[in-house]
Amino acid sequence: MDAAEFRRRGKEMVDLIADYLENIEQRPVYPDVEPGYLRSLIPEEAPEEPDTYEDVVKDIERVIMPGVTHWHSPYFYAYFPTANSFPAMLADMLSGAIGCIGFSWAASPACTELETVMMDWLGKMLKLPEDFIAGTHGQGGGVIQGTASEATLVALLAARSRAVRMILASDPQRPETGITSKLVAYSSDQAHCSVERAGMIAGVRMKKIPTEQSDKYAVQGETLRRMIQEDKAAGLIPFYFCATLGTTPSCAFDHITELGPICNAEKIWMHIDAAYAGSSFICPEFRPLLNGIEFADSFNFNPHKWLLVNFDCSTMWVRKRSDLIGAFKMDPLYLKHDHQESGRYFYTDNSLFRSLKMWFVFRMYGLKGLQDYIRKHVELAKEFESLVRADQRFEISADVVLGLVCFRLKGSNEVNETLLKRINNGRKIHLVPCQLSGQFVLRFAVCARTTESRHIREAWRLITQLAEEVIQAGLDQEL
Amino acid sequence: MDAAEFRRRGKEMVDLIADYLENIEQRPVYPDVEPGYLRSLIPEEAPEEPDTYEDVVKDIERVIMPGVTHWHSPYFYAYFPTANSFPAMLADMLSGAIGCIGFSWAASPACTELETVMMDWLGKMLKLPEDFIAGTHGQGGGVIQGTASEATLVALLAARSRAVRMILASDPQRPETGITSKLVAYSSDQAHCSVERAGMIAGVRMKKIPTEQSDKYAVQGETLRRMIQEDKAAGLIPFYFCATLGTTPSCAFDHITELGPICNAEKIWMHIDAAYAGSSFICPEFRPLLNGIEFADSFNFNPHKWLLVNFDCSTMWVRKRSDLIGAFKMDPLYLKHDHQESGRYFYTDNSLFRSLKMWFVFRMYGLKGLQDYIRKHVELAKEFESLVRADQRFEISADVVLGLVCFRLKGSNEVNETLLKRINNGRKIHLVPCQLSGQFVLRFAVCARTTESRHIREAWRLITQLAEEVIQAGLDQEL
Ligand SMILES: Cc1ncc(COP(=O)(O)O)c(C=O)c1O
Ligand SMILES: Cc1ncc(COP(=O)(O)O)c(C=O)c1O
Repeated sequence: MDAAEFRRRGKEMVDLIADYLENIEQRPVYPDVEPGYLRSLIPEEAPEEPDTYEDVVKDIERVIMPGVTHWHSPYFYAYFPTANSFPAMLADMLSGAIGCIGFSWAASPACTELETVMMDWLGKMLKLPEDFIAGTHGQGGGVIQGTASEATLVALLAARSRAVRMILASDPQRPETGITSKLVAYSSDQAHCSVERAGMIAGVRMKKIPTEQSDKYAVQGETLRRMIQEDKAAGLIPFYFCATLGTTPSCAFDHITELGPICNAEKIWMHIDAAYAGSSFICPEFRPLLNGIEFADSFNFNPHKWLLVNFDCSTMWVRKRSDLIGAFKMDPLYLKHDHQESGRYFYTDNSLFRSLKMWFVFRMYGLKGLQDYIRKHVELAKEFESLVRADQRFEISADVVLGLVCFRLKGSNEVNETLLKRINNGRKIHLVPCQLSGQFVLRFAVCARTTESRHIREAWRLITQLAEEVIQAGLDQEL
Repeated sequence: MDAAEFRRRGKEMVDLIADYLENIEQRPVYPDVEPGYLRSLIPEEAPEEPDTYEDVVKDIERVIMPGVTHWHSPYFYAYFPTANSFPAMLADMLSGAIGCIGFSWAASPACTELETVMMDWLGKMLKLPEDFIAGTHGQGGGVIQGTASEATLVALLAARSRAVRMILASDPQRPETGITSKLVAYSSDQAHCSVERAGMIAGVRMKKIPTEQSDKYAVQGETLRRMIQEDKAAGLIPFYFCATLGTTPSCAFDHITELGPICNAEKIWMHIDAAYAGSSFICPEFRPLLNGIEFADSFNFNPHKWLLVNFDCSTMWVRKRSDLIGAFKMDPLYLKHDHQESGRYFYTDNSLFRSLKMWFVFRMYGLKGLQDYIRKHVELAKEFESLVRADQRFEISADVVLGLVCFRLKGSNEVNETLLKRINNGRKIHLVPCQLSGQFVLRFAVCARTTESRHIREAWRLITQLAEEVIQAGLDQEL
């Protein structure tokens, strides 16, 4: 395929994509296939001679679409959103064509520099403390990671390296081996599973701090303080705390104004994971949720979740860039260049030109457009919450702060599991569950860019209809 | 921007991309900017109200292009190639629009399943041993990672976890803490810097095995065996060896037929990093370079380097999927689904629908088209080698096996550094150096899809012209 054919096929693909997204709500949101469905639909080996492009395109509907979970359907309410916007897609096309790998300034200066500036733009939208803005002289700044999981790990590794350095500085005789096995990190029992995994990868203890429904699933300062004291008494070295703003199960918020000073006093690195909720902080009315950021060493959220920037774009800020550089720096000759020591640029990752899509999206929506988008999703969630609250058979399981509603049928876990199974088997809407204080809870997350009130009401109509059936079946069984 | 506008803008972007790639060789391959150049060209903050799309597009030439290193120019000979093909770009457009995140089978069955089958297709193209093919019943199989660095780390972590399990199985009384600090991993002193970094991340010793020019920079079985014996005698536990097929400095090949049996006998996990060279193994004449794969536990290379599949696509196979799953498994309720235990699918990573681009590329080129592509690059490198060999002032610094030529002026490191600096300052061609046995060496890697013999000859003309100047300047100084 040469450039001339690409001009033709590319334009066809643009139409195919536009058609797909315009008509997505006609498709069953959750696919009706069994594991292994795809293998029998295509050959066992790659062709020797090229296939025709027409055949490849035909196979999109024949092979792929039947097995796709349509994340951008307005009937998709599972997990958390994944961003999808036209400006981001345009930027990704350009990024793919430029196809530079940004592992150093010299590998493509524009890539490194736009990233630093876009991180400043976004940091200012969030009203981050000056310390996190790179500007032309700052010690802190932002860097794009692939995922929040990666950011959590990167922060943990930087914290581990800082802790080892501090310990050796205060006790130069101490052997370096063995320090890691004394380190202890903390996170909420509501934290995303990637936090626990980061601990496994880094080979450090990761203790889960218990939370309570009565505290709205927020980590309490008192609990953290007690665990730190106990661990220190046992000879361990607390060094890292991952706070969550907007937990995965219920969108709960740790109280970082209370937790931050404890971490600072103990020289514990505080990382804030706001993977989903972070996008909302661009709205003045939600910005208070981020109060306490001034105590953090690093902060991360995913514009690729809720800020219209397509995957992958997980934005991470650190107070001191040198902490990251120090933890990862490698400088073989083949990566050396004339501006090696330019301290403004720090990378821990290979990637394409990811900042292009931030640039396109921020400019094509403007701050106001982005705020409107967040507010609309929150309103839709509130609308769903009202519908649930108006129905005596249901209960709300956690405060609705942003775009997530946790709810359940009053009754057993089994009855709720059955309800969810029926909902997903219907394939008209898609939800996933969570567990809160031992209860099986349904999560309803407003996800798609095109979700409107009518979709919310239709979803509720379906849920109540299925609930009716489940309740009726239960009654029949009892008789 | 709605779908209707996207139809228009998307088609314009397709033309913009095609224009860019068709005319890329007119641009200076290496940009003439200083650190910080970009910040002054754009506002300090995101706009409140949207910009126009016309302004955004205008800024591509005004702001971005002056700072781009053009990796896909036929005059780009730096690092190793990064793939860029039209079928892959089309697939990426589709992947962006579907925008599903493949963290579990249920999150999009087509994504999981096409990945497994594409990894089998590619595994068969490489004639991997049956053990690495998932098929419908195999214990092994392939998974796409973002980068080779990630694959090296994932393999190391799986190996660490297997080692700890084996040690605890043979000595259940042994405390788990402390095992890691006894573990020792190995790799060549020619290995990519990401191997050393993986050791840092995992918190294990990573020892560099010295290699010699006289052995063509290949790790010798005798050296590995000796280091293992010494480490065991010192109470350490050897558990991981990362072999490199096609090293970054000089494209050297470790002798895995000799090293593999040593690792197997010692129950050391052998990972093979063939990031660049791996693509060539689809050609029967280069496949012998992979002999010894039957001893490996895991194997990885980057189709996103040399197999026309755009970044990111780093393909990794393991002999036992359970080793990976065991090292990373996390199963919170929000990720549970009905086919949880379907052992065919294993994921350690979030990502888009990356297998789509493998599918498009393999079908649109066919195996023969891909082989032709590899062979053409190798021929171009051989052509460059002949030009160098025909010039008495230069020498070849390492065997030219694939698409990389390491060469230098006979003379001091300084004179070669000066030559390289002049080459890159000219901005017509771009190369990076490496160090081999203390010598400063120039690396000439055939990179772009569109590189032809005329570009190679033009590059050589420029190099010799600058060499002349450098030599003349040296002579003038002596006088
Ligand atoms: C609070 C939180 N942290 C981390 C993650 C993981 O994000 P990623 O997929 O970008 O790693 C999620 C995903 O939903 C999340 O909700
Ligand atoms: C041998 C080798 N391994 C690993 C890498 C790193 O690859 P990636 O950028 O995919 O992590 C390279 C890059 O050139 C390489 O040459």
